[in-house]
Amino acid sequence: MQDSNSDLKTLKKITILQDLQDAELAEVLAASVPRVFPTGSVILTEGDPGEQMYILLAGEVEVTKRLLLPIDQTAVLERIMNRLKSGDGVTLGEMALIENDVRSANVTASTDCRMLELSKEKAFLLFNQNPAMGVKILFRLSQLLSKRLRKSDEDIVKLTTALVVALER
Amino acid sequence: MQDSNSDLKTLKKITILQDLQDAELAEVLAASVPRVFPTGSVILTEGDPGEQMYILLAGEVEVTKRLLLPIDQTAVLERIMNRLKSGDGVTLGEMALIENDVRSANVTASTDCRMLELSKEKAFLLFNQNPAMGVKILFRLSQLLSKRLRKSDEDIVKLTTALVVALER
Repeated sequence: MQDSNSDLKTLKKITILQDLQDAELAEVLAASVPRVFPTGSVILTEGDPGEQMYILLAGEVEVTKRLLLPIDQTAVLERIMNRLKSGDGVTLGEMALIENDVRSANVTASTDCRMLELSKEKAFLLFNQNPAMGVKILFRLSQLLSKRLRKSDEDIVKLTTALVVALER
Repeated sequence: MQDSNSDLKTLKKITILQDLQDAELAEVLAASVPRVFPTGSVILTEGDPGEQMYILLAGEVEVTKRLLLPIDQTAVLERIMNRLKSGDGVTLGEMALIENDVRSANVTASTDCRMLELSKEKAFLLFNQNPAMGVKILFRLSQLLSKRLRKSDEDIVKLTTALVVALER
């Protein structure tokens, strides 16, 4: 069991919580539930519903996405998108806070992982009770999504170009 | 010149402003500058810096993105991504509010367009003065970005699959 002071220090480094004061981080900590995921366990499954976000306090995870090839429907490839570790300021499933949609990727624990689970309901209570904190978190969340969107759109341009070249061979 | 009552009605339909009360919409209106873009004029240029968001009050725009083919560097294709019209709740360049990055696409007026221009600076003043309104706007902005990200990631899966098929021919 880690003490909550050390968790507060880790929370300061989480990307979407970086602008929060200590008292606000303590509010997030109080609204969250500690969770442990042993090596190899599945944290999020692509396509599953989910209303919780996870804050990675310790450990490493792997993010993958299914690729279903139409030439052979049984051949399901997994595209490894990212390996993330605590210290990178990682949250997982944070899109669940703002959307009623399914998980967009698979996340598996590559090592034993210690997390905080924050439900959508609790997050909204926090935003209502302290809108100034809400603005800080939602601003950084928007920034995170915006950066990911730019990266994905660059990938689309590259893939489209590669496809045009491949079809012209 | 439109009266501001009719502009308030239009603002209610803007996706990222949909949760705002009339008094809050009036704050946004007061913080914005009216702009007119005649048919054919360029509103945003991909790669340019920019610190303003545009709210489409009347008219239609076309969103395109450059595709540079490596086989012939002079052949620049424009990928038409979207045609958007007032009534769709459109904002343009809203990523400028949260990021210090260049415009991610070109936007051209397909008809005469009437817009409101809101600077990043003015938006942050609004968020500071009224954080509850900030939460409402940033929540919907996050949702918008999240939906776009899901769409882009689906396109990546489709393009990757098509590329694998093309290379295996």
